Amino acid sequence: MTKTIFYHAGCPVCISAEHDIINLIGASNVEIVHLGEDKNRIAEAEKAGVKSVPALLMANGNVIHLNFGASINDIKG
Amino acid sequence: MTKTIFYHAGCPVCISAEHDIINLIGASNVEIVHLGEDKNRIAEAEKAGVKSVPALLMANGNVIHLNFGASINDIKG
Repeated sequence: MTKTIFYHAGCPVCISAEHDIINLIGASNVEIVHLGEDKNRIAEAEKAGVKSVPALLMANGNVIHLNFGASINDIKG
Repeated sequence: MTKTIFYHAGCPVCISAEHDIINLIGASNVEIVHLGEDKNRIAEAEKAGVKSVPALLMANGNVIHLNFGASINDIKG
């Protein structure tokens, strides 16, 4: 795992944070994953420690939860 | 306001997030403010919308709260 991943679910809080993160670090430095559309990646996100979206999974494995859009359990439903 | 500001209070969650943010965007692109040591900047942070630390104040005025270390009210005490 060498790249930062931004997990979100399309909520307004997520979109706002996505824009801010892309402004900060550049679109080429982050993979954007929409868990609402790509539900088969929810398990991967949970395993990494993502409890809510939007969240950033760092290359070193740390998870940073950004504000609060939705819990990962809500996305599954 | 043209620079991103990272507000923290020295808590373990803050320090971890600080390292991650500096890795992501580079130390020269972010001002680090320790509100526990620099209490006269608490009012500025609150006015910008910071409710807890660690938090990033973006150049566009958006605030992103990162995980949760301490509420800004706790820092004042």
